[in-house]
Amino acid sequence: MDKKIEVAVIIGSDSDLPVVSETLKLFDKFKVSYSINVASAHRTPSLVKDCVQQAVSKGVKVFIAAAGMSAALPGVVASETILPVIGIPIDGKNLSSMDALFSIAQMPPSIPVACVSIGKAGAVNAAVLALQILALNNASVAEQLVEYKKNVAAAIIEKNEKLNKIGYVKYIEEMKK
Amino acid sequence: MDKKIEVAVIIGSDSDLPVVSETLKLFDKFKVSYSINVASAHRTPSLVKDCVQQAVSKGVKVFIAAAGMSAALPGVVASETILPVIGIPIDGKNLSSMDALFSIAQMPPSIPVACVSIGKAGAVNAAVLALQILALNNASVAEQLVEYKKNVAAAIIEKNEKLNKIGYVKYIEEMKK
Amino acid sequence: MDKKIEVAVIIGSDSDLPVVSETLKLFDKFKVSYSINVASAHRTPSLVKDCVQQAVSKGVKVFIAAAGMSAALPGVVASETILPVIGIPIDGKNLSSMDALFSIAQMPPSIPVACVSIGKAGAVNAAVLALQILALNNASVAEQLVEYKKNVAAAIIEKNEKLNKIGYVKYIEEMKK
Amino acid sequence: MDKKIEVAVIIGSDSDLPVVSETLKLFDKFKVSYSINVASAHRTPSLVKDCVQQAVSKGVKVFIAAAGMSAALPGVVASETILPVIGIPIDGKNLSSMDALFSIAQMPPSIPVACVSIGKAGAVNAAVLALQILALNNASVAEQLVEYKKNVAAAIIEKNEKLNKIGYVKYIEEMKK
Amino acid sequence: MDKKIEVAVIIGSDSDLPVVSETLKLFDKFKVSYSINVASAHRTPSLVKDCVQQAVSKGVKVFIAAAGMSAALPGVVASETILPVIGIPIDGKNLSSMDALFSIAQMPPSIPVACVSIGKAGAVNAAVLALQILALNNASVAEQLVEYKKNVAAAIIEKNEKLNKIGYVKYIEEMKK
Amino acid sequence: MDKKIEVAVIIGSDSDLPVVSETLKLFDKFKVSYSINVASAHRTPSLVKDCVQQAVSKGVKVFIAAAGMSAALPGVVASETILPVIGIPIDGKNLSSMDALFSIAQMPPSIPVACVSIGKAGAVNAAVLALQILALNNASVAEQLVEYKKNVAAAIIEKNEKLNKIGYVKYIEEMKK
Amino acid sequence: MDKKIEVAVIIGSDSDLPVVSETLKLFDKFKVSYSINVASAHRTPSLVKDCVQQAVSKGVKVFIAAAGMSAALPGVVASETILPVIGIPIDGKNLSSMDALFSIAQMPPSIPVACVSIGKAGAVNAAVLALQILALNNASVAEQLVEYKKNVAAAIIEKNEKLNKIGYVKYIEEMKK
Amino acid sequence: MDKKIEVAVIIGSDSDLPVVSETLKLFDKFKVSYSINVASAHRTPSLVKDCVQQAVSKGVKVFIAAAGMSAALPGVVASETILPVIGIPIDGKNLSSMDALFSIAQMPPSIPVACVSIGKAGAVNAAVLALQILALNNASVAEQLVEYKKNVAAAIIEKNEKLNKIGYVKYIEEMKK
Repeated sequence: MDKKIEVAVIIGSDSDLPVVSETLKLFDKFKVSYSINVASAHRTPSLVKDCVQQAVSKGVKVFIAAAGMSAALPGVVASETILPVIGIPIDGKNLSSMDALFSIAQMPPSIPVACVSIGKAGAVNAAVLALQILALNNASVAEQLVEYKKNVAAAIIEKNEKLNKIGYVKYIEEMKK
Repeated sequence: MDKKIEVAVIIGSDSDLPVVSETLKLFDKFKVSYSINVASAHRTPSLVKDCVQQAVSKGVKVFIAAAGMSAALPGVVASETILPVIGIPIDGKNLSSMDALFSIAQMPPSIPVACVSIGKAGAVNAAVLALQILALNNASVAEQLVEYKKNVAAAIIEKNEKLNKIGYVKYIEEMKK
Repeated sequence: MDKKIEVAVIIGSDSDLPVVSETLKLFDKFKVSYSINVASAHRTPSLVKDCVQQAVSKGVKVFIAAAGMSAALPGVVASETILPVIGIPIDGKNLSSMDALFSIAQMPPSIPVACVSIGKAGAVNAAVLALQILALNNASVAEQLVEYKKNVAAAIIEKNEKLNKIGYVKYIEEMKK
Repeated sequence: MDKKIEVAVIIGSDSDLPVVSETLKLFDKFKVSYSINVASAHRTPSLVKDCVQQAVSKGVKVFIAAAGMSAALPGVVASETILPVIGIPIDGKNLSSMDALFSIAQMPPSIPVACVSIGKAGAVNAAVLALQILALNNASVAEQLVEYKKNVAAAIIEKNEKLNKIGYVKYIEEMKK
Repeated sequence: MDKKIEVAVIIGSDSDLPVVSETLKLFDKFKVSYSINVASAHRTPSLVKDCVQQAVSKGVKVFIAAAGMSAALPGVVASETILPVIGIPIDGKNLSSMDALFSIAQMPPSIPVACVSIGKAGAVNAAVLALQILALNNASVAEQLVEYKKNVAAAIIEKNEKLNKIGYVKYIEEMKK
Repeated sequence: MDKKIEVAVIIGSDSDLPVVSETLKLFDKFKVSYSINVASAHRTPSLVKDCVQQAVSKGVKVFIAAAGMSAALPGVVASETILPVIGIPIDGKNLSSMDALFSIAQMPPSIPVACVSIGKAGAVNAAVLALQILALNNASVAEQLVEYKKNVAAAIIEKNEKLNKIGYVKYIEEMKK
Repeated sequence: MDKKIEVAVIIGSDSDLPVVSETLKLFDKFKVSYSINVASAHRTPSLVKDCVQQAVSKGVKVFIAAAGMSAALPGVVASETILPVIGIPIDGKNLSSMDALFSIAQMPPSIPVACVSIGKAGAVNAAVLALQILALNNASVAEQLVEYKKNVAAAIIEKNEKLNKIGYVKYIEEMKK
Repeated sequence: MDKKIEVAVIIGSDSDLPVVSETLKLFDKFKVSYSINVASAHRTPSLVKDCVQQAVSKGVKVFIAAAGMSAALPGVVASETILPVIGIPIDGKNLSSMDALFSIAQMPPSIPVACVSIGKAGAVNAAVLALQILALNNASVAEQLVEYKKNVAAAIIEKNEKLNKIGYVKYIEEMKK
């Protein structure tokens, strides 16, 4: 029998992995099970389909798909399932990354993709959004999310206190170290 | 005691209502309970906070926020909750609606918004995405979603058959009627 | 046995048909056989696959796919075949149609789509490009193309002569009629 | 009793500090009192509110808020006060910084933000604009501004004279040193 | 002796007047004295300079300049004064109004313009921002601004109550009337 | 012998004529001789070359070329001559007219095109720029240009006086008539 | 007698060669004969025409033209032939490479260019698209294309298996080597 | 008495000089007299006016103005003269340099600026365009321009021959040296 997973992460190219590792690190931290696959919508359409079906058979609840440029992957995953699909636009060299953002956000009516920010910020946010969805039915994830949100805020409050204590000149000096 | 709701929909201006009515119609069709409020992140920040807290007290599972231009509403809602927040960029007169899309998609790391398409397509997709999230723990919604997806496909298949039967010239003529 | 076709045209939505009719009219004029289908990459992925396979079984030589917004259709068709695929970006209400253009043009390496102009100009150009490909192995199409190109030029030469004869004021007056 | 301040500067992330230090340096130079806080609209909404209220209680006259990407901070500050709010779009890696610029400039009617240039130029200009507002009721700041404007002009006039004296070839050589 | 004015409004073309009338109406409502001139930075540079000098001689405290396309007017006004200058980007037919927005926002360091939203929203916001600056030293304007902000919020709260009372279907029907 | 002309105007399509008539009207007004031709860089490359050569043989001093979309015409004219070439980007339905503007402005080093504003404003400016070039060696054109510039300024001054006399409410009412 | 060639590749500047070498490498690999020329539409229009005519006399079947910025070359080639022309937008320093993309994609009706992705991805895709066209009448190329497509897919499948075997942390470490 | 000059070059900041040195080098090469000044439209409006008047008194025939960001300088120069003004958009860090391009190109009707390419390409083209204008009445410049154009073409023809002789692999290797 297949091992259960909560989230299936698919990336369109292994060059996207350094960005999407931010997503996986957060799942590791939250002890949420996941699968990670490289599968290209354009170069390996069957592999994408297989990944989706296998993930479904493992009881997956949320998909995350990351792609750059034409960025069809999140939409293709969404076409194969009624589970929520989160799309991460990978930043590229041209068009200021508008290509990936527009492709992922501008889905036609009835087949949504939940588009998050471009690049690393989006990789973090895709994980948090997936955790928020899981938390609806998982008290442990919900508690961790509350804690996570507190810690995120606490880190800023701490920075604010430090800045007020040492002043901006010293603060910037310490940033450079 | 508060009546339970599944989804809380907040719009930044009542002028967004004709677009967002596409979202509400779909919830009506799926018999999913929801609240709908007009509350502006910039003009009524307390009302936004109240709407979020009331929705939480009613057991809401997903937020949908729609806004145009600077479009801060979805992010402000997301700042107040660990529930998933879906953002609809409302199309405006200037900047080809890039302003609303960028504001909603480009959230900083740790506070995600699930950005969907601009305008009416996004209003439909926000509803479907919310339903997909609810369906994870609601068999009736899940069944309806399977049915909905079939019907969406069936409508296209039917159009395809009609087009092949009557040809493109007649098809266009009938579209104009 | 399947009737042979030269070109398979697939549109992502029947609302694209008025634009893409420009393509079909040109094939009618050139007496080139074609199929026309409505099939959405996101809403009917199997139908797209079926259309591609049927077209291949009918000996098709070139695909044309038209889509707007996220515009995944041309790329999805390209993922299923080694035949040349031409993509027409359909103009939409938002993002100045950059979304469809970027999605169709920015294909990842190894799976090309031949992107043409946005909207009606692109619908004409998709047909001409397909005819140019067919003409490589079809003397009748080649001859017609030479003729077509001459006529296109002749029409401009004629307009130029008329403009020089009657002057710009009268020319504009006649344009308004 | 709280120490009086003239300007309250809030940045959405401490990574914005090197840019915004240009603002603070100018206030130091003009001997204008200010507070500086890190507070994120999305990650620490209460801290933002606290910062605004504390600044108001210290008699602040102008707010400056800097943020990148979705850049909600200036608008959120503006929602909490009737004091003038100046917004600095912080330059980011994607979207050519259009995201921050559009979010800050495109405020809905009745809640203005005074948007200045992107990045370091904007950090300088936010300070100058704040000083111009303070100068309306502060003769010392007004005098310094007149002096500052003269010096800015004088520096260019000097460069112009140098360029005319040594010629462009030598001038560029000296720039490289 | 010149009659005192609080705000000087300059528009680059009389075709901008219908947009900028939103600014003037608000000043009329707040009983704030103002001047209004048509003067083009490119076509009547001396008139612009005259308008600035006359306004200064009348004790003006804030400038508002509106222009479309290349939109040099606000920057040219800013070059002639140390008073705060607010710029309204007028929406145009091309470039999604990015031209006017970029020209007004992207001022070089040391000569700020306070850029507000594009078009009518910006016209309202320019007035409110000017009033916020005047209010720093004018208790009557400050009180009116507090009231105005309350009314803006109250109008939304009222719409929210109406929407919750009559439902979205009826609300949209009444909007169409 | 060929009749002498001062300026040769070439448009890529007769649909550009209503825009470019603004150029021609100004030449009529200044009594400057010109030729006007429809010739497409892509559809009639030889005709473009012929037009350039004929114009040169008639002693032309400046070329004006107008085109939309891919807008190759001005650059193609520039490739065939060392005379100055002015390019007018014609506004189109898609891409906010960025396509025509970028194509005309972004010429490679050594083959300049003098790009003016998009659409009708550009059509006027192309004429004025051509007249400015002719005026370098034509005292009558120079005098008329001085007069024209005065009249342009006078028209604004007159509007300014009217606005100050009747007020903005009446002015807008009269604009609507 | 001229040696036969299958594809003629023309680049607008020799600085485009490192990008377009991706195209040539693929033709080398497929043992498809080709010519390669540097010829600028704006700086050497006759050379472009000569290259086109020579290629036609050598029996060429497909043109590939690469250019950046104003990027007129592909369209100028297309204006001289009824053979299919593929255009590669070369990425530049400004405008996020939109200039080259728009110029190449936005051809007027009746003169198509097959636009592929920007930069190196486009250089690969131009080759594959040309091979797809040649394959219609060349069984060897068709077989190699089938093989190529399999290998492209196999490479991803292999990466996917490796990622699943060694995990993302090790995978990223190995990528850095 | 003032020494005569043919062209007056004005740059908005000395940081633009490395780019604009391309313009000056070409004038040096063509032995055309010119002045070069740093003068900012926003920071030293009087100096700009002085530069324009001095240049006029020296018999200047063409102005060249270079500026980045808001880039008002070329338009301000144009507002002060009926001589032709060429504008060079200086490339900046943000907005993909669209800000400078749009500001310079989008002049209002009746006050043209001849906008050339962004950055170094534009600096070269501004010089060539100025030379083309001077050549209308200066046979020596005209002859040099004919020669220059030949040399530009010859350089490409030589590169083409070299590429055909040594092949693309060696050519790229030699480029790297």
